Amino acid sequence: MTAGVVSIKARVNRRLLLAARPEGLPRPEHWRLERAELEPLEDGRFRARTLCISLDPAMRGWMDDRPSYVRPVRIGEVMRANTLVEVVESRHPAYAEGELLAGAFGVQEQVVSAGARGIERVPAGPGDPRMALHLLGLSGLTAYFGVLEVVRPRSGETVLVSGAAGAVGSVAGQLARLHGCRVIGIAGGEAKARHAREELGFHAVIDHRAEDVPARLRELAPDGIDAYFDNVGGPLQETVLGQLATGGRIVICGAVASYNGEQPGAGLDSTWPLLVKRARIEGFLVTDFHERFGAARDALARWHAEGALKAPQTVIHGGLEDFPRALADVFTTDAVGKRLFVLDRAPGES
Amino acid sequence: MTAGVVSIKARVNRRLLLAARPEGLPRPEHWRLERAELEPLEDGRFRARTLCISLDPAMRGWMDDRPSYVRPVRIGEVMRANTLVEVVESRHPAYAEGELLAGAFGVQEQVVSAGARGIERVPAGPGDPRMALHLLGLSGLTAYFGVLEVVRPRSGETVLVSGAAGAVGSVAGQLARLHGCRVIGIAGGEAKARHAREELGFHAVIDHRAEDVPARLRELAPDGIDAYFDNVGGPLQETVLGQLATGGRIVICGAVASYNGEQPGAGLDSTWPLLVKRARIEGFLVTDFHERFGAARDALARWHAEGALKAPQTVIHGGLEDFPRALADVFTTDAVGKRLFVLDRAPGES
Repeated sequence: MTAGVVSIKARVNRRLLLAARPEGLPRPEHWRLERAELEPLEDGRFRARTLCISLDPAMRGWMDDRPSYVRPVRIGEVMRANTLVEVVESRHPAYAEGELLAGAFGVQEQVVSAGARGIERVPAGPGDPRMALHLLGLSGLTAYFGVLEVVRPRSGETVLVSGAAGAVGSVAGQLARLHGCRVIGIAGGEAKARHAREELGFHAVIDHRAEDVPARLRELAPDGIDAYFDNVGGPLQETVLGQLATGGRIVICGAVASYNGEQPGAGLDSTWPLLVKRARIEGFLVTDFHERFGAARDALARWHAEGALKAPQTVIHGGLEDFPRALADVFTTDAVGKRLFVLDRAPGES
Repeated sequence: MTAGVVSIKARVNRRLLLAARPEGLPRPEHWRLERAELEPLEDGRFRARTLCISLDPAMRGWMDDRPSYVRPVRIGEVMRANTLVEVVESRHPAYAEGELLAGAFGVQEQVVSAGARGIERVPAGPGDPRMALHLLGLSGLTAYFGVLEVVRPRSGETVLVSGAAGAVGSVAGQLARLHGCRVIGIAGGEAKARHAREELGFHAVIDHRAEDVPARLRELAPDGIDAYFDNVGGPLQETVLGQLATGGRIVICGAVASYNGEQPGAGLDSTWPLLVKRARIEGFLVTDFHERFGAARDALARWHAEGALKAPQTVIHGGLEDFPRALADVFTTDAVGKRLFVLDRAPGES
């Protein structure tokens, strides 16, 4: 199809709106699936079809109305999401039909955009374009800047990573290993623990569902933990604080353990160990490093091409009506690596 | 008196021993005053007379038997303290009679020592030798390294200092001001607040006994606090965490508010604001910087001589039997600047 000749079908967009704010896990009543007809494309805009939607634990936090690092998704607004889209019609000089783009286009089948900061062109090539939502997207970049710029691992250090089999943790652990660290992972369930150990090269992995984490940490890191890359939050943070080595640091990347609870993030009975250990707890946001995303992507892509960095993914297929379930599953089902939701084409769609 | 000719009187030492571990404020029953006869001086040792004892809130922590940055004072051991002493007899080639030394010689009238790391020679000169326990001792050095190396203030930042009229806080606030920051102090009582404002040049001081600290902080720092130099711990730490600017940091120097409680240091309901604010909480110990103490002393002495840095002190006079009261008073009475306990000479002592 060419610009100006658009079928009626292509004019219909389906979008997933936030209908109500959940307490705990999001359920069907928190969503509304809406059909809307797209207006004819104006000059300076393009229309794109959603191919793939990133499934991220952080999305749950965006649904809450409380102060955070981004504004909450509003009631009645299309759910925010990072997606991979294909330009299908363009009256924008910078975007051509057939181009693949990654950006925060939201949970909808189609998007009309005037282009904006934060839209990333996905180069055609032999690689998997979905990597733009994964190793070369915010997951990989979060691991990259969190490890290299905030943890700043030194060779020989013992680095602990929670959510070790997840999209960010799996990359963070591998990056620490590539920098000469001894890497201990924490994951939920034997399959994820084995994956992190055998596929990702973690030196040891604790299965927090089956093992006594504090006792295992003492065994595995008798001289203390030099750095903890924390993806989960919760009471584990204080446990690790008590087992930090002198000069240790806890880097808060996420708090998956509490995204569905009322209490955001971990609490501490006492920050005094920070003085005793000359240690620190620090949070970071990948978006603060956006000016250096290009160089980071180049490094990540090179390590991946060389086989030094693996980027497993779990792909869920479905229509937009299946998305709410897939998002809830992020918190209730096991998977390895990055979760991606691939939007099936509607029957008859070209 | 010269070496080799020592009066019987000089041979008698009185020392204050820790007799029991206090809960809460130390009381008389936690101490034992002991008389002991000093042995004749062996080669390679010197004998010194205590002139002045540093009174520090941290001393309370040393009396507790729990893991900390130094080992606890043992029951039956001389109470640890930093003191200023004068060498009165020497068979040590490096220390001459009449020299003034500062070091951790403990709460006793005399000390016999073989010399050790950490003993600091106090140069003769026009200055007050007690500064060796104060601006040029661990109090001043703690402020120096805490501000310059941990806070690392940038010109134009808003820096908050608790314990603003105390030995460390008063210097920390002045150093932040010298580095171009806007400095807000917190102190207990109108006299201390006025002192910090009028004598030390704090831009604003909140009297936490009379004012609503969170509300005043919002007024005084509407754009948030860039750095908090925390001498007191307690619930104020979480209050400040909630009012940090993006990129803010909390530097834990001490936790005076809880040295007499069962709960060491402040607790946090949630560390999540650290991520939202890209902030950090960090502890430090001045002793980690010991290799650079000389250069720091030079800088502090120069600023003091130039009048840029004031170093007020509160001097308490008494005999060793008055020391327990003076230490408890650190937590229960108001004073400005460094507290020093000057040991009166016994009647008839030369």
